[in-house]
Amino acid sequence: MKMRPSKSKDIATLIKPQVRRLAAYHVDETRVRIKLDAMENPFSMPPAVRREIAAVVKNAALNLYPDPSAKVLKKAIAALWKMNPEHMVIGNGSDELIQAIILAFGGPVLIPSPTFAMYEITARALAQDVASLPLDENFDLDAGLVLKKAGERKAKVIFLACPNNPTGNRFSDSAIRQILDEANAAVVIDEAYFSFSGKTYLPLLKKYPNMILLRTLSKIGFAGLRIGVLAASASIVHELNKIRLPYNINGLSQAVAVSALAHRDIINRQISLLISEREKLYNIFSAMPGVTAYPSETNFILIRTDADATVIHRKLKQAGILIKNLSKPGALKNCLRVTIGTPDDNREFVKTLTHILATHHRE
Amino acid sequence: MKMRPSKSKDIATLIKPQVRRLAAYHVDETRVRIKLDAMENPFSMPPAVRREIAAVVKNAALNLYPDPSAKVLKKAIAALWKMNPEHMVIGNGSDELIQAIILAFGGPVLIPSPTFAMYEITARALAQDVASLPLDENFDLDAGLVLKKAGERKAKVIFLACPNNPTGNRFSDSAIRQILDEANAAVVIDEAYFSFSGKTYLPLLKKYPNMILLRTLSKIGFAGLRIGVLAASASIVHELNKIRLPYNINGLSQAVAVSALAHRDIINRQISLLISEREKLYNIFSAMPGVTAYPSETNFILIRTDADATVIHRKLKQAGILIKNLSKPGALKNCLRVTIGTPDDNREFVKTLTHILATHHRE
Repeated sequence: MKMRPSKSKDIATLIKPQVRRLAAYHVDETRVRIKLDAMENPFSMPPAVRREIAAVVKNAALNLYPDPSAKVLKKAIAALWKMNPEHMVIGNGSDELIQAIILAFGGPVLIPSPTFAMYEITARALAQDVASLPLDENFDLDAGLVLKKAGERKAKVIFLACPNNPTGNRFSDSAIRQILDEANAAVVIDEAYFSFSGKTYLPLLKKYPNMILLRTLSKIGFAGLRIGVLAASASIVHELNKIRLPYNINGLSQAVAVSALAHRDIINRQISLLISEREKLYNIFSAMPGVTAYPSETNFILIRTDADATVIHRKLKQAGILIKNLSKPGALKNCLRVTIGTPDDNREFVKTLTHILATHHRE
Repeated sequence: MKMRPSKSKDIATLIKPQVRRLAAYHVDETRVRIKLDAMENPFSMPPAVRREIAAVVKNAALNLYPDPSAKVLKKAIAALWKMNPEHMVIGNGSDELIQAIILAFGGPVLIPSPTFAMYEITARALAQDVASLPLDENFDLDAGLVLKKAGERKAKVIFLACPNNPTGNRFSDSAIRQILDEANAAVVIDEAYFSFSGKTYLPLLKKYPNMILLRTLSKIGFAGLRIGVLAASASIVHELNKIRLPYNINGLSQAVAVSALAHRDIINRQISLLISEREKLYNIFSAMPGVTAYPSETNFILIRTDADATVIHRKLKQAGILIKNLSKPGALKNCLRVTIGTPDDNREFVKTLTHILATHHRE
């Protein structure tokens, strides 16, 4: 064997420049007493259901590849949300479905601003251009401007989170319908927070072959399973299935989700409780001096503080409560996003925030 | 609200042409008595371990997002395989890691032929060119030809499965080292079958900043969990983490894998038994009239039949035994790949194959 000297290889020159320029997605992993930063459902399943789930796992064939088309899971989700299991793609979280959509249609990707961060992060990681369009002062969408920009930039995909994250509102119905009517692009209606708004565009799928609807099990109690749901026309589903990794949903998540989704009554009760907690919190924030609260149809509330939100966020963290700091110059200046937690956690959050604001004012 | 008539939208013109041209990956989902097509470990964990795993799941927080960096799992895998957990990326199966590599480096992608199908499928789904280079008559690699083609085509990634699937052999050590020395591309050494060969290029990672090593838990008993493992230089790991979806490994797979990997003795015993079954089967195939068997360092064996392999494959399936039919004109003409199963399943397979071949000759 002839061994030549190893050439010095500069990895930086091998990696795509668009990738090199990116920063990795940051997750705040501070261990806290009360975690209200990630739109997780704070409730777990009761012991009897957990025993049932454990029994399913005990009998699961860990050694075999999972069902590549997740047939049983699709049926369970279809029953839960009255969808057609044939026109569905399951993803490793919505994240993977967003990735698959951008891979299938390409860019540029058009997004309103502010919105869910993963649309832009994913598009950039896939080396696609992103065009963004500011929402108005009510965080609503101007359909005319969206369509104009989509046309100018030849956008291939438009992402509309409805309700929107981090603002919590739904865009006006007429704007969404106008975009669906006129855009020459895939229009993704991301209904991640559907369960907390009760409003859906699902029936419009029949009318718009370029419409894609996203849902997720993450916000209703199963963020740990990583199950995103996509519904679209047969032809879009057919194309996305070519891009989807064949065994993208592991066997345990499939089996456990099926088992858990059988307990619809429990899930619905948890959602109702979170909605009622959200309304309580919204009223409290609205009455809180130095705080502006934005109405929400999700399981979180966006608030804006008169004082420096970054300082408040840090003080909350020091007190063991993690929420999301969104503050940066522009539309989200001094904005914080708080996920609806258990009644106890919400009470503790309100108490701590009130104390911090009061102290802050005296400083 | 002004409703304009919906424009007729031709989805076919919106989807990338490279995607439209693809066919979806096909998985043979025939229900069979004996499944020897997918390199699954046929053994499951003993009841005591399954109870332990069930208990882990009973206490898992399904409602919370999983650890985005899979720290505990990385430590468990690092301990199993003597790797550095800091220089590791965990994927939703190796499939996702292959996808991330191609996204980070781009194409063209250079592969030997025949090799693992997902390199080409994934590259094409990502709209990247694929250059392929035939292996020699011993299914070995000509390093000079690989380097010449990589240079001509400006390949960004070279995938070398070692041992190779579906041929079962390792490429000659000198060829791999020469490619690592001279290629101006990322060189991926896919050691999916490492546990069945015992040979590894892991120590070379220190020397080659452009080398990427892949492993998987799928072949050693955990295909259902979808856990692929990548080891590389710090700078490659840094770049791939930008592309990796932040919550790509669900919480159950993380927790269950950690629990299962604690039972290294059981895993190793299963691997030893499969290796000894492989050797037995190889000797039987070698002595079988009308069959050529290729030596294997994996958990499968490639055989070539004098008779039409497609007919034999079909007859096996009719008898309730599924193996992989690889037959097509060229290097794999009349080739079949059989995964090593339990001693009982292997015996039954040999008996059925012998019968089919004998009948076939009389027909």
